[in-house]
Amino acid sequence: MREDVFLHSEAAKRLYAQVRDLPIVDYHCHLSPRELYEDKPFEDIGEMWLSGDHYKWRLMREWGVDERYITGRATWHEKFVKYAECIGLAVGNPLYHWTALELKTYFGIDEYLCAENAERIYERANAVIRERRLSPRECLRMMKVELVVTTDDPAEPLEWHEKIAADPSFPCKVQPAFRADNAVNIRSENYRDYVAKLGDAAGVKIRDLDTLESALRARLDYFCDHGCRFADVGVEGFAGGDGDREEAAETFLRALHGKKVKKDRYENFLAYIYRFLAGEYAQWGMVSQLHLAAGRNTRTALLDSCGVDAGGDIAADAISPRALARFFDSCEKAGGLPETIVYTLDASNAAALATASFTFPKVKPGAAWWFCDTLGGIRRQLEVVAETGHLAIFPGMLTDSRSFLSYPRHDFFRRIAADLLGEWVEDGTAAEHACSEVMYRICYENSANMAKINE
Amino acid sequence: MREDVFLHSEAAKRLYAQVRDLPIVDYHCHLSPRELYEDKPFEDIGEMWLSGDHYKWRLMREWGVDERYITGRATWHEKFVKYAECIGLAVGNPLYHWTALELKTYFGIDEYLCAENAERIYERANAVIRERRLSPRECLRMMKVELVVTTDDPAEPLEWHEKIAADPSFPCKVQPAFRADNAVNIRSENYRDYVAKLGDAAGVKIRDLDTLESALRARLDYFCDHGCRFADVGVEGFAGGDGDREEAAETFLRALHGKKVKKDRYENFLAYIYRFLAGEYAQWGMVSQLHLAAGRNTRTALLDSCGVDAGGDIAADAISPRALARFFDSCEKAGGLPETIVYTLDASNAAALATASFTFPKVKPGAAWWFCDTLGGIRRQLEVVAETGHLAIFPGMLTDSRSFLSYPRHDFFRRIAADLLGEWVEDGTAAEHACSEVMYRICYENSANMAKINE
Amino acid sequence: MREDVFLHSEAAKRLYAQVRDLPIVDYHCHLSPRELYEDKPFEDIGEMWLSGDHYKWRLMREWGVDERYITGRATWHEKFVKYAECIGLAVGNPLYHWTALELKTYFGIDEYLCAENAERIYERANAVIRERRLSPRECLRMMKVELVVTTDDPAEPLEWHEKIAADPSFPCKVQPAFRADNAVNIRSENYRDYVAKLGDAAGVKIRDLDTLESALRARLDYFCDHGCRFADVGVEGFAGGDGDREEAAETFLRALHGKKVKKDRYENFLAYIYRFLAGEYAQWGMVSQLHLAAGRNTRTALLDSCGVDAGGDIAADAISPRALARFFDSCEKAGGLPETIVYTLDASNAAALATASFTFPKVKPGAAWWFCDTLGGIRRQLEVVAETGHLAIFPGMLTDSRSFLSYPRHDFFRRIAADLLGEWVEDGTAAEHACSEVMYRICYENSANMAKINE
Repeated sequence: MREDVFLHSEAAKRLYAQVRDLPIVDYHCHLSPRELYEDKPFEDIGEMWLSGDHYKWRLMREWGVDERYITGRATWHEKFVKYAECIGLAVGNPLYHWTALELKTYFGIDEYLCAENAERIYERANAVIRERRLSPRECLRMMKVELVVTTDDPAEPLEWHEKIAADPSFPCKVQPAFRADNAVNIRSENYRDYVAKLGDAAGVKIRDLDTLESALRARLDYFCDHGCRFADVGVEGFAGGDGDREEAAETFLRALHGKKVKKDRYENFLAYIYRFLAGEYAQWGMVSQLHLAAGRNTRTALLDSCGVDAGGDIAADAISPRALARFFDSCEKAGGLPETIVYTLDASNAAALATASFTFPKVKPGAAWWFCDTLGGIRRQLEVVAETGHLAIFPGMLTDSRSFLSYPRHDFFRRIAADLLGEWVEDGTAAEHACSEVMYRICYENSANMAKINE
Repeated sequence: MREDVFLHSEAAKRLYAQVRDLPIVDYHCHLSPRELYEDKPFEDIGEMWLSGDHYKWRLMREWGVDERYITGRATWHEKFVKYAECIGLAVGNPLYHWTALELKTYFGIDEYLCAENAERIYERANAVIRERRLSPRECLRMMKVELVVTTDDPAEPLEWHEKIAADPSFPCKVQPAFRADNAVNIRSENYRDYVAKLGDAAGVKIRDLDTLESALRARLDYFCDHGCRFADVGVEGFAGGDGDREEAAETFLRALHGKKVKKDRYENFLAYIYRFLAGEYAQWGMVSQLHLAAGRNTRTALLDSCGVDAGGDIAADAISPRALARFFDSCEKAGGLPETIVYTLDASNAAALATASFTFPKVKPGAAWWFCDTLGGIRRQLEVVAETGHLAIFPGMLTDSRSFLSYPRHDFFRRIAADLLGEWVEDGTAAEHACSEVMYRICYENSANMAKINE
Repeated sequence: MREDVFLHSEAAKRLYAQVRDLPIVDYHCHLSPRELYEDKPFEDIGEMWLSGDHYKWRLMREWGVDERYITGRATWHEKFVKYAECIGLAVGNPLYHWTALELKTYFGIDEYLCAENAERIYERANAVIRERRLSPRECLRMMKVELVVTTDDPAEPLEWHEKIAADPSFPCKVQPAFRADNAVNIRSENYRDYVAKLGDAAGVKIRDLDTLESALRARLDYFCDHGCRFADVGVEGFAGGDGDREEAAETFLRALHGKKVKKDRYENFLAYIYRFLAGEYAQWGMVSQLHLAAGRNTRTALLDSCGVDAGGDIAADAISPRALARFFDSCEKAGGLPETIVYTLDASNAAALATASFTFPKVKPGAAWWFCDTLGGIRRQLEVVAETGHLAIFPGMLTDSRSFLSYPRHDFFRRIAADLLGEWVEDGTAAEHACSEVMYRICYENSANMAKINE
């Protein structure tokens, strides 16, 4: 890839040059705080890439690779070679772009990985891992990461965050995020076990909706005491109705007693509990993230053999903009709408959802997420935000990744944004100084402000 | 902005040059006929821009501007300065483009408005207002407006249209349009008051569906006697079922007696009354406009403080193409489908809706509307129309605006259309003489024919 | 049209040059096997174009042409002239592109047809028809067609396929495809007659779901004995639920006894019978094609006057990605998911449907279909496939046509694909050798493999 890849005009190159070296604020990812703290050196690019990345697993399955070489017993070397065969023809796929960017950025390898160069690149990358002593912290250092926000369950202790905070040598700040999925997913088979665990963590015996709320409040206190600024939620379904509390309380009791919860009752519960959480987040001045329209674990055969988060997910049915607006309105009427970022996995009505978001001054559309996080998808989402409101208040990029090698996605984003705004400058449809300011905000300042990184 | 802004090829420039100076037929706007008649000179660009434009209010709220500077007590000068700060970084937003085009076209100011130049531009624009004696009629004259079609409630008198018609000095034609929202919105709180008012205007005591229809027919006679050629409707929801008359009659009685109307009954009523109106419009040879998928007044806090049409609107859930086709089929079976233009606010399925429209020879897709009325949105809608039917029968641009300064939107449209068709000419995928003819039709002839302007 | 039309870069031209002369595998079309066998020479371009092409009829109706010149009694010459007037201004429409490509490819006429040149082109094209002795087989020969897959009803004999197979002079292979619409459409008025016919063909007395399944199995045996490799189905509606067999059996009995079948029962039946068929196809190693989101015969006036497949169709409501994933999962659980291609007529959520497809390794998104089969639509679908999986496994182009003149659509596709991939090569975002390999696969190899053409 050329130095100026993705940059089609002189103006784009100028805009990119101004943001290229800004620090990275990764305000939503799935990195392990334990691995961050322990900082175990890496040994093998096959393991780094393929031990946990369900994006790659999914692409390999679709390409016909045997599961043995995906999540099975093959060696990292064997898995790497299979991945090389798979990625070599994946032109236009985000993994094709990311793989090239990661090889170049971390390993200085300026080639497209494919079947032919697999062995050579495997050797060379592993040599670089050894030479540079690549480790979790070294990856953050190399990429000038200023903040990592992990994704954490309310029932879990934040022991590794504590250790990181107590370690003056740690290269960046690390915040936990309050991810409430398990607490709200009352139709999950393990819900009762989870509630017990949550109660234990909070020191509250959860026996009804009141005590569930007390427990969540206690854990939120604990998280905020540990520097938490962000919350998020991403269970399937979104009701957006008014969420009657009395009915929600009954529904919760049913779930607590192991009874089946019907769809309409579940939706009422979700609407209520989302509003309850929103109110709490607003009081803490937190930023709430809604991850909408994900359909998880849709392939039973895969769920049974490989468990959750293994690549069997889809962009589910589009979310109703009406329901989204009703939810925000309901929060405002109840007195608490926090700063909120809306992500959707089905981009078909991203523009309509953006109109619903921008109607409420505290709400804004988020980055192109997951299946939408592509060259074209990022550009389209930037256009949607600009056409329906201010691109200047867009919260900017995040990795959403489980891998320490995913930081070039920020560079990918900066190039795509610079290319789009550069096009406007060249076309004479936007002032360059304005585009320059917007770039700074969406590549750094907005996310740093949300994270209160400089307070 | 350069002279050739938005025009990327020589062919685009040639096509634009041919339509640049054509008169404007603004067949759908929200200008006040009273202001048109009275022609009070303007004094302040702040007032011209910010006294009634909820597009700008909305953008300012999202930008964090205090309501005092939006709809509150601040001076026009203060409001203008706040708007300048807000628009300066709104690159890519249609208001950014429109603001620049309006400054250039009406005031000869060739700069992007921003915080830095706000004071200077304020002074200069106000000086131009005084020098040129800018007034409603002068705005129309400057822009070569040939026809203005206002939006009028069936219960209102058309006294200002009469005065305009009687004034030989008036610079263009003005037609009323029959906007039936208040008459069909049986779930509105003020519906009974409205029905009384409508009955008074029609000289009919409305006590059931029969008399409602008589009243609507009487008002339609009155409107058509005043030169009305266009109807439109834009309430939320669209059923498209067959619309049973007996049930609709019962539903109407419920509404008339102040009882609550459930969703399914409301939808049946809408389906019926839309078909009734379509039949009437067909008999009069009128053009019917359907404004679909608007979600209005979704933010209660704003509705309570600023009232309706204040910027709390969204692109609501996409309309079912099946329902749309069923509606047209139902009209044909009942004997009356007028020439119809379909607008949608959620563009996600604009192409599917276009296939439903083009199945019925009297129906066609309309211009990119409201939130879709952007640089990208206009281009996409032109592509949708061309891909699913004849761009040559596209009805063309309208302002849909409350402001006398919005006429450059027609120039914006002409440039975008010329750019798209010019691209085809340069690519060698369309004959230039055909593109030239299509440009003339969609920039002038089709709308002039619909309005029967030359009859 | 220039030699390099649709090709915007040198890389695009190189990629196109490599696939330009590859044979055509038309794995889904509506050509008549009888006409193929009988090979009656053509006489008139008006008849060739307008005797059966509802795409053209539709465009002519929308343009205001009287039905007399569409499906009525006018001469072919008169109809051709009307079509010329209609197409001359249809810039940007796929018929505009196809008409030009067909004139150039088959007749050597390098002009855009329009009112002005209609007579001249009519004479010249008819002269070419006579000179070249254009006939069905000659059309296939000229275009290097290697395989034609027709669309056949399970109740029909395959006598013409037998005759073709027995004729050593036939220029290409011809396979039947198993199109089950009539067998699953239990709400059709003629369903009982159809079932009787199907039973006769199968030698089975169909009196319940068991015997329906036996009959379908018998016909599938017969089709596969005649070289059938492909199945498809395209009735309206898609349930994707689990499809309870007991309920489906009851529902079928209702239909068989001429009783009305409600929507939810119909959907359960569809879900069950689709899964049953999928299991059978899987056992035969066939490729199953799902044509989703078509709304057929939506205009009663047209259906009454011209019958089915006359141009009264729409892109119906978008299909739920959740439902699609549930269907595939249900097939896998039942033990039989065949290789499957998913087409959708409402492209709004094509990307979401692609994520549901790619979750199941045997499923892939298909070509841009019908209303989506346009310059822009083909490009967008290629982008969707590349962004959500491997473009390299995309099954490639088909004509889906009733006309022997439609083969340039393959050239159209090859150019658009080369242009997109060439752009990536020029941009430096994909390796040229990889793009080259992908082009070969999607322009020939993948479809040849599906058809087992070389076995």
